Amino acid sequence: MRQAGRSLPEYRAVREGVAMLDACMRPDLIIEITMQPVRRHGVDAAILFSDIVLPLKALGLDLDIVPGVGPVIAEPITELAGVDAIPAFDATRVDFVSEAVTGLVAELGSTPLIGFAGAPYTLASYLIEGGPSKDHAKTKALMHGAPEVWRALMARLAGISAGFLRVQIEAGASAVQLFDSWAGGLSPHDYRKFVLPHSAAVLGAIADLGVPRIHFGVATGELLAAMSTAGVEVMGVDWRVPLDRAVERVQPGQALQGNLDSTLVFAPWDVVEREALRVLEAARSAPGHIFNLGHGVLPGTDPDVLTRLVDLIHSQEMPREG
Amino acid sequence: MRQAGRSLPEYRAVREGVAMLDACMRPDLIIEITMQPVRRHGVDAAILFSDIVLPLKALGLDLDIVPGVGPVIAEPITELAGVDAIPAFDATRVDFVSEAVTGLVAELGSTPLIGFAGAPYTLASYLIEGGPSKDHAKTKALMHGAPEVWRALMARLAGISAGFLRVQIEAGASAVQLFDSWAGGLSPHDYRKFVLPHSAAVLGAIADLGVPRIHFGVATGELLAAMSTAGVEVMGVDWRVPLDRAVERVQPGQALQGNLDSTLVFAPWDVVEREALRVLEAARSAPGHIFNLGHGVLPGTDPDVLTRLVDLIHSQEMPREG
Repeated sequence: MRQAGRSLPEYRAVREGVAMLDACMRPDLIIEITMQPVRRHGVDAAILFSDIVLPLKALGLDLDIVPGVGPVIAEPITELAGVDAIPAFDATRVDFVSEAVTGLVAELGSTPLIGFAGAPYTLASYLIEGGPSKDHAKTKALMHGAPEVWRALMARLAGISAGFLRVQIEAGASAVQLFDSWAGGLSPHDYRKFVLPHSAAVLGAIADLGVPRIHFGVATGELLAAMSTAGVEVMGVDWRVPLDRAVERVQPGQALQGNLDSTLVFAPWDVVEREALRVLEAARSAPGHIFNLGHGVLPGTDPDVLTRLVDLIHSQEMPREG
Repeated sequence: MRQAGRSLPEYRAVREGVAMLDACMRPDLIIEITMQPVRRHGVDAAILFSDIVLPLKALGLDLDIVPGVGPVIAEPITELAGVDAIPAFDATRVDFVSEAVTGLVAELGSTPLIGFAGAPYTLASYLIEGGPSKDHAKTKALMHGAPEVWRALMARLAGISAGFLRVQIEAGASAVQLFDSWAGGLSPHDYRKFVLPHSAAVLGAIADLGVPRIHFGVATGELLAAMSTAGVEVMGVDWRVPLDRAVERVQPGQALQGNLDSTLVFAPWDVVEREALRVLEAARSAPGHIFNLGHGVLPGTDPDVLTRLVDLIHSQEMPREG
């Protein structure tokens, strides 16, 4: 999950006067911002600073991230011509990511770097809606009403997601996460029919690289079983599903990542501690559990609470075999 | 679910120049707007035109519904003094609702009227956040961090919700729905500990009136089991949970309401028909199923599609025993 960001004064300082996507295209800023939470909190892994729409921007799509709004697309997609206008993935357009990852891996030493990409459904939803949406009505109407446009769009986006993940892994990322932020708004039927095959294509396309693949979406309790068949080693679980319930829905041998409610860090410390320990308790039935928030760090979070939380989790870790 | 609203030209006409909460306080408009979808679509029940924050406004709280935003509260609640300042329920402050319900019941004849109220958690979230929120961070921080303030607030709101439902039933409503719109953002643990007892208090307080009680929230798949124990005859289910899965989570003998994705009415008619029939198919394992959208009608919906959908469902209905 996102760990760098507005909760950190050092992040706000380096982002001053630099637009979000511009920051995601400068190797020096990618490295600096990725390192900030590692330095400050001592987390066990770095998360590449980027954005799920970055590869679309790098390929030349007319889009921007508008502060307080989110990604805004100049020409939303309604038909096949719009899909055809999306360029295929071209690794040379994201050289700055390769450069940043190479630099990060050198700086991080034994701390692993986790890369990520947006899943085709979530990217498609931005391209169709023209920006963030509460209900994704246009996306679902196109998905159901123009299945040939849908398939073409999802196939094009799957190629981009897979290409973007491959670049990160080949430059040295130790693991990757496929983010399907908005999949949780779909019924299980629609997810399996219209989305799963394309996410599976992304994850299948990087299987040969042999790094752990993580899959996550918010409010995906009903979809965990389906999502876990997409070709992944780790399933991210938001705070809505207790880990001891989630483990029964995913594939045998898969690890779980999560799932402290990101808002709970706004409560007094004794609450944070109690609830974090409750997550660890539920994780006893989930071998290989990776402690994390159930979603990204919220902007107003007190970073000192996060540092204290990392220390707490480290103090509870089971001894590793030598 | 909401069936009147901006999708109807006749609604936009009568609302012209009248603020939302003002419309909810005029018996003539409540009656007219409630009747509109009954006249147009021939639905099997009328849903009282109101808003979940209406009783708070009627009791004197300084709040308003801002178009494009939602309910906005002048002085968000942070401590016990704020809770103490919320008046207890007073039926004389909602005389206009009693008057409207009485008029509606006369006009509706054999068509039942369904009343509703907001559940304490959802009302509390508006009062604490000061308005709509994506993450309800302040609400959860207060819930965990100041449990005595939380309990006092929830108890006060439970009294208001129960009182508002009682007024509607005593004036002639045939059934009521308790809307916990935002409960789906809670973990099952937090829901059971901090919310369920108060929703159960609301529903228990009207048990003596003997009308069917419906309970609903969006994205509540993980909470259906808990919510179904609150004292209800019907559980509303959003489109994320197939009805044949939902029926295994609720109490034996409870009916299900739902659950066509409200956005699917934007797809071509053959899709609407196919998906509506798929809902009915899943409902075969859910005795007493009440067909409905999985959430309220979206403003951009074509009302003719809704009329056609109502006709389709009526054409599929099982013959009733005489």
